[in-house]
Formats: sequence, C-alpha cells, structure tokens
Amino acid sequence: MKTFKVAILGCGTVGGGVARIILENAEILKRRAGVPIELAAILDLFPEAASKRHGIPRALFKGTGNELTPDVATAETGAILSDPSIDLVVETIGGSSDRIRDLALSAINAGKHLVTANKALLAKRGPEIFKAAYEKSRAVGFEASVCGAIPIIKGINEGMSGDRIVAVNGIMNGTSNYILSRMSREGLSFADALKGAQEKGYAEADPSLDINGGDAGHKLLILLKIIFGIEAAIGDFPVTGIEGVSAEDTRFAREMDAAIKLICFAKKVEGGVCAAVRPMMVRSANILSDINNATNAVRLTGEYSQENVLIGQGAGSLETGSAIVSDIVFIARYGEKAVRPHGANGNALVPFDDLPMPYVIVFDTEDSPGITGLVTTAIGKERINIDTVSHNVRGAGQSGAVFSIATSPCTASQIARAVAAIRAAAPTVLRSEPKAYPVLE
Amino acid sequence: MKTFKVAILGCGTVGGGVARIILENAEILKRRAGVPIELAAILDLFPEAASKRHGIPRALFKGTGNELTPDVATAETGAILSDPSIDLVVETIGGSSDRIRDLALSAINAGKHLVTANKALLAKRGPEIFKAAYEKSRAVGFEASVCGAIPIIKGINEGMSGDRIVAVNGIMNGTSNYILSRMSREGLSFADALKGAQEKGYAEADPSLDINGGDAGHKLLILLKIIFGIEAAIGDFPVTGIEGVSAEDTRFAREMDAAIKLICFAKKVEGGVCAAVRPMMVRSANILSDINNATNAVRLTGEYSQENVLIGQGAGSLETGSAIVSDIVFIARYGEKAVRPHGANGNALVPFDDLPMPYVIVFDTEDSPGITGLVTTAIGKERINIDTVSHNVRGAGQSGAVFSIATSPCTASQIARAVAAIRAAAPTVLRSEPKAYPVLE
Repeated sequence: MKTFKVAILGCGTVGGGVARIILENAEILKRRAGVPIELAAILDLFPEAASKRHGIPRALFKGTGNELTPDVATAETGAILSDPSIDLVVETIGGSSDRIRDLALSAINAGKHLVTANKALLAKRGPEIFKAAYEKSRAVGFEASVCGAIPIIKGINEGMSGDRIVAVNGIMNGTSNYILSRMSREGLSFADALKGAQEKGYAEADPSLDINGGDAGHKLLILLKIIFGIEAAIGDFPVTGIEGVSAEDTRFAREMDAAIKLICFAKKVEGGVCAAVRPMMVRSANILSDINNATNAVRLTGEYSQENVLIGQGAGSLETGSAIVSDIVFIARYGEKAVRPHGANGNALVPFDDLPMPYVIVFDTEDSPGITGLVTTAIGKERINIDTVSHNVRGAGQSGAVFSIATSPCTASQIARAVAAIRAAAPTVLRSEPKAYPVLE
Repeated sequence: MKTFKVAILGCGTVGGGVARIILENAEILKRRAGVPIELAAILDLFPEAASKRHGIPRALFKGTGNELTPDVATAETGAILSDPSIDLVVETIGGSSDRIRDLALSAINAGKHLVTANKALLAKRGPEIFKAAYEKSRAVGFEASVCGAIPIIKGINEGMSGDRIVAVNGIMNGTSNYILSRMSREGLSFADALKGAQEKGYAEADPSLDINGGDAGHKLLILLKIIFGIEAAIGDFPVTGIEGVSAEDTRFAREMDAAIKLICFAKKVEGGVCAAVRPMMVRSANILSDINNATNAVRLTGEYSQENVLIGQGAGSLETGSAIVSDIVFIARYGEKAVRPHGANGNALVPFDDLPMPYVIVFDTEDSPGITGLVTTAIGKERINIDTVSHNVRGAGQSGAVFSIATSPCTASQIARAVAAIRAAAPTVLRSEPKAYPVLE
C-alpha cells in the first residue's frame, strides 16, 4: 500500500496542531483514508522552538540549528517541492502576500495537493490558485479556512449536494462575536470588550480584520464561491464591521428580545445573489441570536432541506488543525476525484442595498409627548411601512425612553433617508443617534 | 461522458421527492457529480397514482395500468436489477422485512450501488448489507437515514475525519420532540400532544416506534457504527421512550431552567462506549434545550474540534429526498472510492447504567416543614452527593411545592435506590411520583 506523504510549511499554532494530530492518530487516519498518512517534513523558520512548543520530533523539521536563514528556508522549501514522494503540502504560514501566493502556486505546479486554512489568501488569490490546481488536477482543501472545525465546506459540497442552497447567514468571526456578546451581557463599551478579547487571546494585537468585518468578508467570499459559484473579489459587496455598535445598541436589542450579531449574509434573488457583512438585529427565535462568545454558526437555507444550522469552534490550534487533517484524509482517500472545476457558473452579485429587508431603527429619547407622531410621520413620508413602534419609558431610577421602530421590508437607501428624517423631525429630544439594523427573523 | 443511471424502488413520499429533485436539477447535479445523472426507471405498485401525485412522467414508471400485480412487480424489479446500465438503486419502499433485506442484497449482488433512508433496515440488517456491499465493491449511501436533511453522515465521515469524536448527544426523532415541545409549552398531556402530532401529520397512526424510542434507537445504532465502529444490535443498549414523561415533569423542567428531551446518547469511556436513548433533562445553557417541534439536532464532541452541533429537518419528502440525492451525487462522483470497509474496529459497548451522570430527581410535595431534611437524609444514605436542593413553594393560587434535587454524578442504580428511599421516607407528603432524569449540561 502506497503511503500518502504530507509536508507542513509553517509550524505555528495551526501547523503544530496538524502535526500533532497526524502523529497521534496514525492507525485511525489510515483506516479513514484507506492509505497510511505520513508526516514527511515540516518547514519552520524556528525549528527548535516549534519542535519543543508542540512536542514534535526535531528530526521532522528541515534544516539545522535554531533558526533558518532566508536562503536556507528557500532552499529547504525547494527541496520539499521537488521531492516527488511528497503528495500534499499544508500551507500554514499565513498572509496573502505575493510570496505566499507564489508558494501555493509552486506547490501545485510541482504536482502537490494543497491544503490551507488561509482565508485571506483564498479571498485575494483564490481564482488563480483554483485555476492552477484544476489545470494540474490537484485538489485544494480549505475546510479550515471557513469557521475552523465546523465541517461546513464538506457539509455543503458533499452532504448537501442534492439541494440548492438559496441563502446563508453566518456568525463567522469569533472575535467580533465575543466582543458583541460581552457588550450585550455586561454592558461593556466596544473599547473595553475589545480589550477583554485581546487579554483572553481572542483578538490579535492588531484586531482590524476581525472588527472591521474583513475576516468575515473573506469567509463569505469563499462561501459565495462554493455555494453560488460566484468568483467575487474583496470590495464586490458591502462590509461593515462592529466598530459602530454601541453598548446602547446592544441594550436596545436586548429590550427588543433580539441580539446584534455580525452576520455574513448572502441570498439568492431574482437576477443574482445579494451579499453583505453587517451587524444585524437577530430575533431571539433565530438560533443565531443564541450563539455567544467565540462560537461560530452558519445557517443554510436550502430549496429542499429548509434550514440547516452548523455550530462549532471557528478557531484554535487543534480545532483548525483537525479540519486541515480532514482535508488531508479526504484528498488521500479520493485523490484526483477531489479536484473540483474552477470558475464561475453564471450567478452574479446584485447590490445588497436594493434588497428589501425588515429594519429596526433604534434610539433613545426624552420622554416627551408627541414624539411618536413626529417620528412616524417622518418615516411614513419615505414610503416605509411601519410594523410596530415601541416607545418604552424606562423603569424607576432611569429617565428617558427607548424608541424602536420595526419596519416592513424596505431598502437600505429608504432607511438612510428615514434616519435623516428622524434627525430632522426630532432634533431636540433625541438622546442617541438613530441607527438602523437589518433584522434577521 | 458516461451517464450515471439511477432506479427508484418505491415512489411514496420520499421516493417521489428524490425523483422530483433529480428531474428538476439535471444541470446542477451533473456539475456536482462530474457526470450526468439520469433517472432511468421507477418501480411503484401504483404507478398512475404516484405519477400524478408527484408530477413525474408516467413513462418513467415500470409496468402498465393503475396497479402492478405482485408477479409483475417482481418481474419488473428483476428487470431493473438485471439491467447492466443501471448504476444505483434507491430503496424507498421502507420496512425491514426479509423481502426488503433480500431486495437490498439482490441489488448489491447485481452490482448496483444502494442508497436508502431506511434506518429500520440498516439497524436490523446493516451488518449483512454492508458486508455484501464491501465484498462487491459497491457503496451504500444512508445520509437520509439519520436526521433526514442534516448532513450528519458526511459531516462525520468526510468533514470530521481528522478528529476523534468522543461523545454524541442528539435529538433524532422529530415526532417525540414535537410532542415534548407542546407538552412543555402548552402544558398538554402526553396523550393530547400525541393526538396533535397525529393531526399535524408528524406522527403515524401507529406511533409506537416514534414514542417508544425505537426509531431514535435505530439512528443511534447507525451513528455508533460510523463514529465508533461498533456493530451493535437492537437491545444492546437501553432505550426508553417518552410515554412516561408527564406534563408535570416538563413543568418541573421549565421551573429548573431546563427542558426534557429524548436524547440519543453515546460516550467514549474507559473500556468502551456507553449508549442509551432516554428522556433527559437538558440545561438551558445547552443548545439542545432550544430545539423544538419536529427539528432534529446532533451535538458531536470531538477530541480536537470540541463541540459541533448540526441542526435541521429530520423528515419530509423533499428534505429526506435531498439527502438521498446527495448520496447519489457522492457515489456518482467518487465511485468505488465511496465504498467503506465494514465490520467493527475494536470498540465495545459497556453498560450505560454504570456511567456516572448528574441526575435530577423531581416531584411535587405538600408544603410541609421538615421534608427537605427527610428527603436529603434518605438520599445521602445511598452515598449520593447532592449538589443543590430546591423546594419552591408555588405562587399565589397554587398549593404545594416543587421539590428538585440535583445530584453529583452517580449511576442509574444508585439513583433507583434513592428514588425508592424518597418514597419510603416521605410517603404521606408526596404529591407525584419521584422521577429521575439524567442531566445534560
């Protein structure tokens, strides 16, 4: 029986997890793959430290000494790629630079299958990587790039291939969900909740991509490709992060029996697919409203299967590592059958802002007579139907009132005009900026 | 490009769904399978009625007239099985009789792949069917047999193959979950909730297998096989249905911030795997407590991936049909690579009753002084540690008190003795039978 040989490039948090899982489960993985899986080589710039940190034999690491010089690293990488016995390369270096893109393409062009958790790389360089892989009949495994350990890619590609998915709504960035959860539960400000996330290790020192929606956008790009066959690029759909969400807003949400979540949203509509990453008001009847802390969840709506929700851990060394190993097993088992055609299949993105959705507009006001009429008249002029208006005077010891207006489905541009109209109509009694959130029922 | 030809045996609710999905999605399925999928033949005893009911061309049905005689049905089945151009047979007749077992084996022995949603068949006849298929290098697809549209089988086999699953907890029978949900929410009796389920079409005229845990047990048997490699038989683990759950119990649960759910339970322990189907008290922090009505959910605990929860529809014509079509696509795409080894892999079942679990013992009492001491002393004598005792006097307009005792982990036999001890210690003030439920946190 031929052995399926794997090399890991980059032995940090995730790469180290992959190595450990392969080493600890030889018999199980062999049974599942139908062929022995061998960890043949690891490349890391700091082999001694990586070996100690993860408890992996030093002999598996390429190069000598504590630290590889750039020249040695390049030479050793070349040695791995030109070794005809290596079947698959795991890229766990990270980043989406030309260098990483070139490395991925070199691995494929050298005839290796590629497995990666690198959503930024796939979001920016996906089309060229998938094209090269298809032309070389090599598979690209990226289960770990979307929601870590949740089997979302194979759930869709293999488990739901008999269905037509028409909508996806996901909480796909653990850091921002952790921040929103703490803001909601503890009344923390965004800044304090972010600090807490950094202290807990949920957020990087530079958390921009997590909180500005960029990371969630990368994952939505990948889902757009596998679900709808759309090869979109960053910037092709609107992405709003959570920086603009205030503790006040999360309190409004709670009082309305909802929760604010950063939602990766895509929906099949007449003429195409609408997509966006946005903070949305998720009603408590929707299970996504209950997904807290760093947990990820994806709700898929199928033409036939109705709702499927997959919930799990979106990050972590062994969590993400196990998803990478699942890809290795899959490719070892199915070989060239695991290669998928690249390219778009006719679906196109259409503007999210033209999609009618229910909205909730929330703000704090003085408890002043006549304000309900003032505000609802202003909104009515924008031809928005109001479903419910609630103007709850606060309880003992608090002053003012929470004003929330739930609209019938209308577009984002109608809502923008309505918010401006509220500001104009009731400038003296507003105690917070009116903000509008799309509503997920 | 060769066409992959499919025959459907039995065109009822599910078979009709399969036929419709194949006919409506030719282009999509071809792209996903990498080969055109053709519905070549349908066998149903009432071809005219089935054709009209599902809107499927009559020409696809074997035989003439409104109804096939048994002889004609046998001959036409034989014609399908001996047609070398048919690649795969979908068995959607149902039942686990010798006749259906023989039909499945004949299909496999004639060189056809087999896809079925028939959990009773796989629970009772699985080992011989999987063995025959392995020997003939034919695949058996059964995604639809466990939780209908939820991609649980491929989620486990393909998406989580890099992990070791150590526990599974599932709500895997929609009928019983619908009944428990209505009992809990509306205070209905078991009998009234069952009647409601029958009226809504969620329960059969003979609902035994749904409410006695048998159907859930069949599904757990299948999961034991694919997760732990255990080839168990019905009767190898305890199965308790929901007939013994009272409206009172569901009220106790609500008051304790929990919900009673029929749980398919399996857990890796020292020396083997514990399995049971039992009503359990699921704490509100566990997402399974929020799964209501006919929805199914499975929580998988992985050595590496931690918790993954998959939620979706467990039944329905197109829901289950889409899962069957996913199997067809999978087998068309991967061919003999989709064949899996049969047989056990060394894991064994160990008694569930020896597994220490936290329990909750609930009952109604008079509001009488001294009862707490009486009851807790009796329990203490059974060497059970009590975590919390709550003895809530009911609100205005109600008399008596709800007594609930949460224990530290202990075994089912300890609990049985404790319940007997409570009965003996406090016979005059008990207003309901003490019942014990294992607790899922």
